[in-house]
Amino acid sequence: MSNSNSFKTIGLVWKDTDTPPQREIEQLSRFLEQRKCRVLTGLVVLTEERKLVLDNSELLGEECDLIIAAGGDGTFLMVARSLLPYEVPLLCVNLGRLGFLADIPPNNMVKALSGIFDGDFIEESRIALQASIISNGEEIYTTAAVNDAVVNKWNSSRMVEFETYVDGRFLNSQRSDGLIIATPTGSTAYAFSAGGPIIYPTMDAILIVPICPHTMTVRPLVLGADDVIEVVITSENWEPPNITCDGQHTRGLNAGSRVRIVRSERRVRLIHPASHDYFETLRAKLRWGA
Amino acid sequence: MSNSNSFKTIGLVWKDTDTPPQREIEQLSRFLEQRKCRVLTGLVVLTEERKLVLDNSELLGEECDLIIAAGGDGTFLMVARSLLPYEVPLLCVNLGRLGFLADIPPNNMVKALSGIFDGDFIEESRIALQASIISNGEEIYTTAAVNDAVVNKWNSSRMVEFETYVDGRFLNSQRSDGLIIATPTGSTAYAFSAGGPIIYPTMDAILIVPICPHTMTVRPLVLGADDVIEVVITSENWEPPNITCDGQHTRGLNAGSRVRIVRSERRVRLIHPASHDYFETLRAKLRWGA
Amino acid sequence: MSNSNSFKTIGLVWKDTDTPPQREIEQLSRFLEQRKCRVLTGLVVLTEERKLVLDNSELLGEECDLIIAAGGDGTFLMVARSLLPYEVPLLCVNLGRLGFLADIPPNNMVKALSGIFDGDFIEESRIALQASIISNGEEIYTTAAVNDAVVNKWNSSRMVEFETYVDGRFLNSQRSDGLIIATPTGSTAYAFSAGGPIIYPTMDAILIVPICPHTMTVRPLVLGADDVIEVVITSENWEPPNITCDGQHTRGLNAGSRVRIVRSERRVRLIHPASHDYFETLRAKLRWGA
Amino acid sequence: MSNSNSFKTIGLVWKDTDTPPQREIEQLSRFLEQRKCRVLTGLVVLTEERKLVLDNSELLGEECDLIIAAGGDGTFLMVARSLLPYEVPLLCVNLGRLGFLADIPPNNMVKALSGIFDGDFIEESRIALQASIISNGEEIYTTAAVNDAVVNKWNSSRMVEFETYVDGRFLNSQRSDGLIIATPTGSTAYAFSAGGPIIYPTMDAILIVPICPHTMTVRPLVLGADDVIEVVITSENWEPPNITCDGQHTRGLNAGSRVRIVRSERRVRLIHPASHDYFETLRAKLRWGA
Repeated sequence: MSNSNSFKTIGLVWKDTDTPPQREIEQLSRFLEQRKCRVLTGLVVLTEERKLVLDNSELLGEECDLIIAAGGDGTFLMVARSLLPYEVPLLCVNLGRLGFLADIPPNNMVKALSGIFDGDFIEESRIALQASIISNGEEIYTTAAVNDAVVNKWNSSRMVEFETYVDGRFLNSQRSDGLIIATPTGSTAYAFSAGGPIIYPTMDAILIVPICPHTMTVRPLVLGADDVIEVVITSENWEPPNITCDGQHTRGLNAGSRVRIVRSERRVRLIHPASHDYFETLRAKLRWGA
Repeated sequence: MSNSNSFKTIGLVWKDTDTPPQREIEQLSRFLEQRKCRVLTGLVVLTEERKLVLDNSELLGEECDLIIAAGGDGTFLMVARSLLPYEVPLLCVNLGRLGFLADIPPNNMVKALSGIFDGDFIEESRIALQASIISNGEEIYTTAAVNDAVVNKWNSSRMVEFETYVDGRFLNSQRSDGLIIATPTGSTAYAFSAGGPIIYPTMDAILIVPICPHTMTVRPLVLGADDVIEVVITSENWEPPNITCDGQHTRGLNAGSRVRIVRSERRVRLIHPASHDYFETLRAKLRWGA
Repeated sequence: MSNSNSFKTIGLVWKDTDTPPQREIEQLSRFLEQRKCRVLTGLVVLTEERKLVLDNSELLGEECDLIIAAGGDGTFLMVARSLLPYEVPLLCVNLGRLGFLADIPPNNMVKALSGIFDGDFIEESRIALQASIISNGEEIYTTAAVNDAVVNKWNSSRMVEFETYVDGRFLNSQRSDGLIIATPTGSTAYAFSAGGPIIYPTMDAILIVPICPHTMTVRPLVLGADDVIEVVITSENWEPPNITCDGQHTRGLNAGSRVRIVRSERRVRLIHPASHDYFETLRAKLRWGA
Repeated sequence: MSNSNSFKTIGLVWKDTDTPPQREIEQLSRFLEQRKCRVLTGLVVLTEERKLVLDNSELLGEECDLIIAAGGDGTFLMVARSLLPYEVPLLCVNLGRLGFLADIPPNNMVKALSGIFDGDFIEESRIALQASIISNGEEIYTTAAVNDAVVNKWNSSRMVEFETYVDGRFLNSQRSDGLIIATPTGSTAYAFSAGGPIIYPTMDAILIVPICPHTMTVRPLVLGADDVIEVVITSENWEPPNITCDGQHTRGLNAGSRVRIVRSERRVRLIHPASHDYFETLRAKLRWGA
């Protein structure tokens, strides 16, 4: 059996835990062998600082035509974020709870992959974000986000005070638990919990959602993907608010710190079975309209 | 004084009421005379069926380089809708309550217009919608909407039952007071009242917001502007639900009636003073973030 | 078999349709015969004006120790409203869709009733409302509501303008689709659709929920059950807004019309199986927390 | 000048900062001297652990007929919480931002107090909460709350997993940023930010509001004041969620920890000028209905 497509070198990725998904990895390996693919493996590892990193990511990104991850949405998100610079196509076998991103069910895995390797698939291209911290006029940190960049209170019950700017224009000042700047992909993640709308995942849009604002007069706001969002912390805090990207804690923010969020130059490429229907996922996974 | 721009033939439009905005019309006429413009006039008239229509709209649309309306958002909306086929640039002096669309304050009118006629302006291009009713497979009615097409219960306290499809794909079935399909322009109108997000007005997006759904499991949904939205009434009602476009009542909908909403082939062209800032309008008119 | 309780005369009530619930009525009749009860029957009838009324309600109210309704929430609501003056205990076998009020499943009917007739039941006492229309200082109409009294736009897409007063104190003026004044029972009905909180059903509280207000600065409001709520229509409308009580259309409201809502002097008495748990109903019927 | 009322011994309380409200304290002292009151003073002090405490609280609580606090809502809240065991009447001159609780404006202070000391006042009685942590079956901590007891994620971006029980009955399990259990007083504080309804402050009710739940199927819930609310943490977390009462950080919560919230045996007694109108406060301070 040979492939009618260009998926020759495949990255096989899973999370390094006490209970790795052995059965699925074996099944996937056998399938890829049959398909005569070259297989590279990668592990999502938890560092001592409790961050998830994908080892081997440079090789995977540069060599692979397709990444197959076996895990939950969290693992997949992490993989997508790590491999963003390489724009390599990704798909994910869902071994987790929700499976919003990881949409290939394990019990149907080989059949679904067969279809995909036979060329029967949909490729979705989604935007990602690049978040930077600017302190005293200098960029001191930058990182990517597939779901969202979130400024939020940390280690404290006190609200954060900040101002938001869009393309240099003042939007509003706010006292709240924080602010979510999300991609359409992230509109079903934390932005959703905070009351945001669903944005169709392939749209070029950025969603801004306040977290528990102490005013009635703000709402979720949908902007174009080319808008530059800046959040400026306006008060000093004993416990500085933090910025997290895709749930990964990054840095504390002092008064005057500026977080700048722009569309990433890279896009996330997701591979779905040809039968994939986003609305079906909404109904099945979020019980949309039930 | 001559114009540095192409605004030669100007349509001057206002609402025909017992108390027409005489002072503003005179001021505007004088200004246009000074600028050596050819002026055509149009009246927004209330018909016996209580619909607003713009008389003279064909001539205005075909001849004018710019329409200046004096009135509130409702008047301006009506003018924009009537002249949509001609894609003629529009601006509006706000004589109404809110002035979200009509953003030139009357006390600053001549100064603002001078700037605009000197070429110091912003032109915004916004999408509009086309809504059709299909009954027994036949299109029985079609009309345009600048803000929104709304399916809603009518003359009844009973919920409407309907199904929604996007590009032929089933989204969900629903029992509610109705459904709003809005442009970004309409995101600050009825969709806003029903809890929808704000969408930046020049985005190519369509917003779907349920009206008082009797379930917790739906949310506002943002789709691409090229998506085809269809709403199918699934139960017979003593008092058929209606479709209204920009608040103008159109038709009753029987069981099986299908409402199809697509992006209009025409766009709304709005002229703003160069200093225009949408976020300022949000803050000033909706007290955003106050 | 005799009853350990005081349920001697029983009202058996169902909706008069082409497909009456014959099987359930027969089962219930047999059960009541075994229990040596005197049985009176009542029919919920749709009048030519499309209102639901309970015939025989005076006799049922005065003679019965318990009313057993077989139908959906709508039928039960109607029965509860009609029999409110008599404060007769009610229970309902659910033949409808949701069964929030009608919480005895038909397949378990006789077993559940046996327990109840053996004295193994919970009696819940809930408040109801009395709504009156005052025009030119005169009360021109008054009616009861078990769920809610709703002022809403009617036969129109235009917002209603009104002021709300609580115990004679001004609360706010509003432009919206209307206002819901609900009992805790009604907090899972229309008030819920409009975004209101759930109120535990036996609380003495009144809930006010705006319907699609065109402002961000109102929220659902919970007041004491003894507060007097007044809604005054402040603008003339071509199509006057209406007041509906428990979804039954009553009257149009002109400018200056005042709707006064107070707690009814009567309470609704609901009989539940001893195992009844409101939170289980929330989870099962509204999928609460799913 | 003597008092027509029983306000003989007065506690004068303010926050100990670099810029104490000297002018107001002097004015208040002079006023109380004229009224021949015995004056005790108390300071709200920030401890090294960054907790606010009221020194002298036992003496103030036992001796005073009235406490006058000069400060913002935060200061007043702290005073009310510290003096809760003594049920001494409280009033507050607003030196802060919002002044929702602290409702006597400083520029009108002496006039307002004169009226109050002449007997022209309203006394409001509001419920408070008692929150306890139970670990391994043992109560390891207990504290009072005037606004709210909040279980929330801490030092982490990960959601908290917990179950909620009401009077021993299971309500729901949840993954969210946390849960707010609030008094009516607290319904305009954090519960409001999280989307809760307003509850009239003198109602005997407890409000439960989820913080950013990752499901659509929960809503704010209003319960009777005598209900016992329990929140059980169901998963272990690297960074244990915390419970804060009135914004004061208390303790971390491990898996299996149970937080029990009941109505306090004591009530908060607030003194307002006779002209006080809660709805006016809503409109003025929250821009309600604007």
